[in-house]
Amino acid sequence: MSGDAGTAGNSGYGRKPFKRSKSHFADRITADGRDGWPVESGRYRLVVSRACPWASRALVSRRLLGLEDALSLAVADPIQDDRSWRFTLDPDGHDPVLGIRYLGEAYDRRETGYPGGVSVPAIVDVPTGALVTNDYQRITLDLATEWTALHRPGAPDLYPEARRDEIDEVMAGVYEDVNNGVYRAGFATGQEEYEAACAGVFRRLEELAPRLERQRYLVGGTLTEADIRLFTTLVRFDAVYHGHFKCNRWKLAEHPVLWAYVRDLFQTPGFGDTVDFDHIKRHYHQVHTGINPTAIVPLGPDLAGWLTPHHREELGGRPFGDGTPPGPVRADEEVPASGRP
Amino acid sequence: MSGDAGTAGNSGYGRKPFKRSKSHFADRITADGRDGWPVESGRYRLVVSRACPWASRALVSRRLLGLEDALSLAVADPIQDDRSWRFTLDPDGHDPVLGIRYLGEAYDRRETGYPGGVSVPAIVDVPTGALVTNDYQRITLDLATEWTALHRPGAPDLYPEARRDEIDEVMAGVYEDVNNGVYRAGFATGQEEYEAACAGVFRRLEELAPRLERQRYLVGGTLTEADIRLFTTLVRFDAVYHGHFKCNRWKLAEHPVLWAYVRDLFQTPGFGDTVDFDHIKRHYHQVHTGINPTAIVPLGPDLAGWLTPHHREELGGRPFGDGTPPGPVRADEEVPASGRP
Repeated sequence: MSGDAGTAGNSGYGRKPFKRSKSHFADRITADGRDGWPVESGRYRLVVSRACPWASRALVSRRLLGLEDALSLAVADPIQDDRSWRFTLDPDGHDPVLGIRYLGEAYDRRETGYPGGVSVPAIVDVPTGALVTNDYQRITLDLATEWTALHRPGAPDLYPEARRDEIDEVMAGVYEDVNNGVYRAGFATGQEEYEAACAGVFRRLEELAPRLERQRYLVGGTLTEADIRLFTTLVRFDAVYHGHFKCNRWKLAEHPVLWAYVRDLFQTPGFGDTVDFDHIKRHYHQVHTGINPTAIVPLGPDLAGWLTPHHREELGGRPFGDGTPPGPVRADEEVPASGRP
Repeated sequence: MSGDAGTAGNSGYGRKPFKRSKSHFADRITADGRDGWPVESGRYRLVVSRACPWASRALVSRRLLGLEDALSLAVADPIQDDRSWRFTLDPDGHDPVLGIRYLGEAYDRRETGYPGGVSVPAIVDVPTGALVTNDYQRITLDLATEWTALHRPGAPDLYPEARRDEIDEVMAGVYEDVNNGVYRAGFATGQEEYEAACAGVFRRLEELAPRLERQRYLVGGTLTEADIRLFTTLVRFDAVYHGHFKCNRWKLAEHPVLWAYVRDLFQTPGFGDTVDFDHIKRHYHQVHTGINPTAIVPLGPDLAGWLTPHHREELGGRPFGDGTPPGPVRADEEVPASGRP
């Protein structure tokens, strides 16, 4: 998770209104390497938690763009300890490529004694083991626009130049009210602060719904970065934000338009195949003991609905534009049955 | 609330599995007065919280049977303090009939230094100010069968002799798995204990659903005590048990049969007109700080659906048997707009 709230474990919230930290390490990996980090196949490692919506954006982009072979993947344990994200899912508790136990070690190699939180997504330079960037707002845009030489044949254009103003505008509202709004609701320490955030979540969703009733995707008839960013929040909505973060005016499953929209994405190769509901549910409920002191993980919701027909094809559109869907998930990156509907 | 868990405020749960206390004061008010408490108009006062499902059974029965004039009503503040249920909603913070600030004072007049919890529903003898009974399992049965001389003309038979075996059997399962099951889920301190309780809630509801798909009420075609007892849990389901108690496999609003059944009851005079969603939501979320440390009360769920058509009339049945529906709510007992859909 990006920001202090996502990384601070039990103390995930304090007395002050929740404020998401800006990423500290904002170097960019670019085609021209102007920050010292040129796009290069096999050089970098993407570190994520499948629990985290910010990191999951990168998981989706990497799949859609076919960057699996160029940019390797480390998946952290959904349960942080007091040293934050760790590789306890890997043999011996070490990431097999970076050889470290904690993501924080890559931060240390970049800047000794950095006092901020350790967050995902993070991209690490494999040769030096040092963090390059944890800039969750930038990473996926650069995967879409700077890593093009390494894209698979048929990769979609997720951030088309002609639509960037509209994409940026939609994403800005979605970020403020939805992506981050659910956190402001969940980590609120007072009733007013909570109510403002929760009302904002539903106001924005209700504002987006008529658009999504008319067209298959947020910006026109093809998938863009805007859909990825809304998806990673919506896919968590009923499982954690509805109950754990008290965003409970309605479940997504009760909203015909948004529920069909998110199922359509979920069933599109590159989206649902990155989602691990087990990681999602255990992370939020077991880490945020400030709002769930028993750390009990709810049995619900019933996930069977995710695979039901959505009929969004009737709206037309071309999901991948002039491109094609990504192929199957690599065997070593498949989400285990415990995390799937 | 009955039992320690419902009355102990912050310490609503401990390390041991949740166990509901038996009522300590189990004298019965009967037609023949064999326990020393004869049925008598105007002599007793029913003390409830509109938040509490156990007390709300008595609210519904009293309305259906037309006992409003015979048995007066005190409504406690939904938020207990360290001395438990209190009359802070009344002018000057005193119950106008009993003249006491805390329900516990009526317990004291009955038994000095009683160490157990103070619970609702409670029936108090007005002349002496002493508690007669807090036996939540018995009170409504006696209203139905012992208070008959004071019933309104057209009062239904809520506990008909010929169907008692079936009613008792249905109620026993509903009590164990649903009425009390949601509490065992919500107050569980361990994952296994929670999962067993939560699974039991949904197993029982799914077992009841086919019955309610075929017939309008739980036991045959007329309202009985069994419906009252299921109603007072179901009406709280989406508002508190789904999120706060983690009974979140699905919302009632997602289950066509049960959602229609509970809306039918809600829209029947004597049921929904006793329900105060504001009291319900504030009580659970503000009192149980052991499971909701911020005491924030969720904005949802949207209550508009409660008043939508349910089409259960098509199943036939005669809600009140040979009787009639109760008349309108007394003006001084109307639920304020803040608590209504």
